[in-house]
Amino acid sequence: MKTSKITILILAAAVIVLAVALILQRRTPAIQTGSPIEVIMTRSSVRSYTDKPVAKESVETLLRAAMAAPSAVNKQPWAFVVVDDRALLSSLAEALPNTKMAAEAQLAIVVCGDMRKTLEGEAALFWVQDCSAATENLLLAAHAQGLGAVWTGIYPNAARADAVRSILGLPSYIVPLNVIPVGYPASENTPKDKWKPENIHTNGWQAEAE
Amino acid sequence: MKTSKITILILAAAVIVLAVALILQRRTPAIQTGSPIEVIMTRSSVRSYTDKPVAKESVETLLRAAMAAPSAVNKQPWAFVVVDDRALLSSLAEALPNTKMAAEAQLAIVVCGDMRKTLEGEAALFWVQDCSAATENLLLAAHAQGLGAVWTGIYPNAARADAVRSILGLPSYIVPLNVIPVGYPASENTPKDKWKPENIHTNGWQAEAE
Repeated sequence: MKTSKITILILAAAVIVLAVALILQRRTPAIQTGSPIEVIMTRSSVRSYTDKPVAKESVETLLRAAMAAPSAVNKQPWAFVVVDDRALLSSLAEALPNTKMAAEAQLAIVVCGDMRKTLEGEAALFWVQDCSAATENLLLAAHAQGLGAVWTGIYPNAARADAVRSILGLPSYIVPLNVIPVGYPASENTPKDKWKPENIHTNGWQAEAE
Repeated sequence: MKTSKITILILAAAVIVLAVALILQRRTPAIQTGSPIEVIMTRSSVRSYTDKPVAKESVETLLRAAMAAPSAVNKQPWAFVVVDDRALLSSLAEALPNTKMAAEAQLAIVVCGDMRKTLEGEAALFWVQDCSAATENLLLAAHAQGLGAVWTGIYPNAARADAVRSILGLPSYIVPLNVIPVGYPASENTPKDKWKPENIHTNGWQAEAE
């Protein structure tokens, strides 16, 4: 009799623990990671960062996401320079008017076009589109991991490209498209609402009511 | 005594049911919907489609995702032409050597740059990067919804751009960047493995071992 009462108590406790675990787990997915669409819709430019270091694995995920992008005729005409050296980050921040936040970022990734891997003739320019798709993947992968990042444009600004080339010792066939400072966000970031139905046309161009 | 035995049996059964539910739920997230990172890593170009119609809400999600992209100085220099008219889809397929699959697609979205919304001078060219980021968002949102799509490049190919402009009646300030046929995939699509650690450089350029 006493044994069975203890057994009942133990089993009842187990039921409660398991039920609570089940309820907590049911709630986890929605909080933990957003759906892919939600991640796309809530990404925003993050320009200030905490001191929290970014794990090597997280950086690798950013680069894996970038290289998963499509490219014209699958040329993959890209190269990535990861900068986590404090002096180099400061140099980039000093040289580039739109990349000041690199000075306090944990790292920056410079997305580059590799001119040895492009298509021929006017199609060579597809590298810009390919590397831009790779960059957007990188930004989304950052947001999905709770990191913050911002796309600071370099190409086609020749002065900015020269500065990056000089600081990082890039050869002439490597063209820096942008510098992406990365870190954990120092504050909440509210995404802009950029939904404009007037940007949409159906089966041809309709003149806007302007 | 008998009552306590029954209680023990009921509680033991509850423990088993809850434990199984907990284990099953722990497995669910990975199977159910891909995580954002998984969606980025598994997207691939889809060039053949079933007859299944694509809901208007799904198309709107593609366009919302596209417009959520970042753009230089937040200019949002884009416009989108949704084509679901069968005759127009056939015309695009006939005129564009790399867009044959539009003929059997449920729809196509033409991502365009709007030259009235760009920055000034050489920075005007940032529209290509902005619209490419929007396109990558659109492709990821398609894959996240179980749709298939493929980026067929138009700009900077002048002949292709003229063909699209003529078929869709685009004004001179609208430059078609690409045509994205969309539909439910007719077959399984295996993503290419494009991970190449040799694309990664750290704190400056290191000569490749070639």
